[in-house]
Amino acid sequence: MAKHSWAMSRRHLLGLIGAAAGSTVMYQAAASLGFAPGSTYTGPIDLTGDPGGASVVILGAGLAGLVAALELRRAGYKVQVLEYRDRAGGRSWTLRGGDVFTELGGATQKVGFDEDLYLNPGPWRIPSHHRGVLDYCTRLGVSLEVFTQVNHNAYLHGRNAFGGKPQRFREVNSDYRGAVAELLAKTTQQGKLDEAVSKEDQEKLLESLRHWGALDEDFKYVQGHEASERRGFQTAPGGGLHGKPTTSKPVALSDLLRSGLWRLLGNGDLYDLQQPMFQPVGGMDMLPRALARAVGDLVRYNAKVTSIQQDSHEVKVVYENAQGSGTPATVSADWCLCTIPLSILSQIDKNVGTEMNRAIDAIPYASSVKVGLQFKRRFWEQDDGIYGGVSYTDLPLQHIGYPSTGYGSSGKGILLGAYIWGPHAYEFTGLTPEERVERALEFGAQIHPQYHKEFENGVAVAWHRVPWSLGCAGMWTEEARKEHYEHLCQIDGRILLAGEHVSYLPAWQEGAILSSLDAISRLHRRVMTR
Amino acid sequence: MAKHSWAMSRRHLLGLIGAAAGSTVMYQAAASLGFAPGSTYTGPIDLTGDPGGASVVILGAGLAGLVAALELRRAGYKVQVLEYRDRAGGRSWTLRGGDVFTELGGATQKVGFDEDLYLNPGPWRIPSHHRGVLDYCTRLGVSLEVFTQVNHNAYLHGRNAFGGKPQRFREVNSDYRGAVAELLAKTTQQGKLDEAVSKEDQEKLLESLRHWGALDEDFKYVQGHEASERRGFQTAPGGGLHGKPTTSKPVALSDLLRSGLWRLLGNGDLYDLQQPMFQPVGGMDMLPRALARAVGDLVRYNAKVTSIQQDSHEVKVVYENAQGSGTPATVSADWCLCTIPLSILSQIDKNVGTEMNRAIDAIPYASSVKVGLQFKRRFWEQDDGIYGGVSYTDLPLQHIGYPSTGYGSSGKGILLGAYIWGPHAYEFTGLTPEERVERALEFGAQIHPQYHKEFENGVAVAWHRVPWSLGCAGMWTEEARKEHYEHLCQIDGRILLAGEHVSYLPAWQEGAILSSLDAISRLHRRVMTR
Repeated sequence: MAKHSWAMSRRHLLGLIGAAAGSTVMYQAAASLGFAPGSTYTGPIDLTGDPGGASVVILGAGLAGLVAALELRRAGYKVQVLEYRDRAGGRSWTLRGGDVFTELGGATQKVGFDEDLYLNPGPWRIPSHHRGVLDYCTRLGVSLEVFTQVNHNAYLHGRNAFGGKPQRFREVNSDYRGAVAELLAKTTQQGKLDEAVSKEDQEKLLESLRHWGALDEDFKYVQGHEASERRGFQTAPGGGLHGKPTTSKPVALSDLLRSGLWRLLGNGDLYDLQQPMFQPVGGMDMLPRALARAVGDLVRYNAKVTSIQQDSHEVKVVYENAQGSGTPATVSADWCLCTIPLSILSQIDKNVGTEMNRAIDAIPYASSVKVGLQFKRRFWEQDDGIYGGVSYTDLPLQHIGYPSTGYGSSGKGILLGAYIWGPHAYEFTGLTPEERVERALEFGAQIHPQYHKEFENGVAVAWHRVPWSLGCAGMWTEEARKEHYEHLCQIDGRILLAGEHVSYLPAWQEGAILSSLDAISRLHRRVMTR
Repeated sequence: MAKHSWAMSRRHLLGLIGAAAGSTVMYQAAASLGFAPGSTYTGPIDLTGDPGGASVVILGAGLAGLVAALELRRAGYKVQVLEYRDRAGGRSWTLRGGDVFTELGGATQKVGFDEDLYLNPGPWRIPSHHRGVLDYCTRLGVSLEVFTQVNHNAYLHGRNAFGGKPQRFREVNSDYRGAVAELLAKTTQQGKLDEAVSKEDQEKLLESLRHWGALDEDFKYVQGHEASERRGFQTAPGGGLHGKPTTSKPVALSDLLRSGLWRLLGNGDLYDLQQPMFQPVGGMDMLPRALARAVGDLVRYNAKVTSIQQDSHEVKVVYENAQGSGTPATVSADWCLCTIPLSILSQIDKNVGTEMNRAIDAIPYASSVKVGLQFKRRFWEQDDGIYGGVSYTDLPLQHIGYPSTGYGSSGKGILLGAYIWGPHAYEFTGLTPEERVERALEFGAQIHPQYHKEFENGVAVAWHRVPWSLGCAGMWTEEARKEHYEHLCQIDGRILLAGEHVSYLPAWQEGAILSSLDAISRLHRRVMTR
């Protein structure tokens, strides 16, 4: 599991290097020992020094709370965790057959998925630069597999694009690029770039455009071998006497531009969605489950926090049984690390300073909806050749996500049949779960007609109706960052906050973990300087 | 395992649809039932009809031979297979700890890899449109996992590019695209595209370029949030008080053009290398192993074919024990399906027609070298944040391939330390295996300095020295295709050929399988019309 000795010795080594050689060498050493580039995660946290019996009550057993519990106990703190639900993980949540979920408003769904099939209603993918999440997976023995984000064979679909017929990502992507390369090559050859690009560079630019855009010898993106090696063939190369390929015909730039499908390109080019991405084998809750195995003895489940009060000596947290039975109980500690979503926390009685209070009240929570659909067979693989990845559409369902596991298996499978943000998420939230599933089916069948015949059952999670988060994630505007963010991060007396909402990575698990590590580092420094 | 009933009923259904409704409906039905788009694989082969006791001797137990054995026996043929080696799979080969391999010239390597670690010296990835390979994996219960081809965090490296410092694919890719988009946007705004693009389309083109190239509001690709969301941040977004990201500075187009690194972009955009790609869990030989479990009773291993003679009644194949002991033996059959690589077959005594003989002699075999290196720890993940994928360099080693399995695990790992084609492959072939490993280490350390400290052992396969293939794959020129290909595909009396060399997919397993299916389909028609 964890490799503390390695972590310690690395830290120790860095300390020695830093002391001996100054910060430049220190940075280089850090980069070659790991963790420096692409992430602010700096390796296993090092809370050196004896906290002298200090105690911390952690509110919430999501990733932020669990990581804090693990690291603070390891550092010598007395730790207690209060969790509203009967399980750990918070939004790092996986729905499996038999699970029961009651949303705000009372609608209850019993998940009908077959064994080994699941839906991650919350986070479902881990960028490879989210080193914090990945390192905890490694340390806790959570197996990872690739999450397929980019699939060149998946669809781009627009209601008014190409008569509503889904297009392959491969074709739109290749044709748009080819057309852009051809246009720029042409302008270069016409001498129209002479002001902007030197003659010497123009030669190289032309060569590079041909290479990059799959242009032919005349710098044209046209039907032929070059283009088909990107956009695919009319008849694919085969074997034996009947294997001769035939090339395919690119779509004209004007048609591409008018289709609007270029708006759906480029998701996989975003820093957070670049390949490779990962998922824990078996469901996203494998990480919180592993953490809960390590710190579960510290967690009181079904504990609904109703009040957080601090004075100069301690913090008192009152909680009730979340099922509504029993009398309120109180937990006291020297410090409180609160990871409760702001949407909930803003409704809890607490005595924090004005500025933190204003910050807590200021951040709205995003609306998002996910629908999982179980089908009798993996028709997206068998019929459509789509193994993993995401199809994008301007239909309200926005995304269809194909499972990144069990590729090629002959059994059933679950699609993410809708993944919705923005106005359509509000619309879907207003529907009953059954209606959400119906709408996802109805819209999705425009892309996969097999839906009609193959559907078995579904489940729909509208995050604004999830009682313990009332939304999907904190929605930060630039103004809110300026006005409120630092206040939210401060140690307010004996209380401090953590969670994705206290990060520059909202809605990402990495944000929760990094905010938690930042919070407990600062807390530990405070404790050690007393 | 196999779902024959489904396969049959699908065929049956298509037959009914075809009869009732004509070919357009037939095609649509085929597309919705699967297999039509993107591959010439048309689903499990259907060799209906009784071959009346016809016998076939198959030469070679690689994928082409194994698939033919499976399908021909199922169709009622008497099948025997002769295989030179002591195992099935041919070039679909996996080297594991303890394996011993003697190359031409006598150099013997005993593989020193730890348990569960391996190298695929031959094919190592399966495109998701290679439906034949994938379908046999499904039918034979071979588990698949994603092969990570594109990794935005992997390196592009040029000896003379950026002072020899490896660049992240993410940065070069984003910056080149951004610069191209900015240039084209500028020309558009200057009215220089007025002849080529209509005014209405120009508006859309500008909007699309901004979106696609990560341009700012002024259509510039510059340091800022948009560009950093593609090329990565100087300081990545983090959590808590210290999480504020800082943006990174793009590389100027001129520097990119002069670096030549754009030559190393775009591999993942090729039809055959587009994500997602796959590999069998546990090594590429898992598919031939599964096939061998199904037809192993038909295979005579260690059988070196020395003569193939046909007359109007039968084919006689003479073979010797490949270890050189014992007397020659003879196998007779009505037909012979020969999958022996042309590089070997051209040296075997055989009586086929002049044209086939000329074709067999005409195709040279490509040189390719792979080097596998075992390291004490997965420093490419831990230090460099590279989980799977390929780094490209203009050093002779050409590629460094990172393992697409065991991500984040704390144990040892194996890199594909060199994957070489062309002139450098000949150079490396001229070295001893130990020297090849040394060179791969020496060059590779320019990209990963950790090589020096972490290396444990290595293995090197130069395909021109592999005794049973004398090369990596058939190298077809356009002229050779015209002159020889159809002759190679014909049924020559009682002999016909299969293998990647008898396909338009040279060096791909799919080529071997499709050529085999094409060959046995034609053979079966011939048998049935007698």
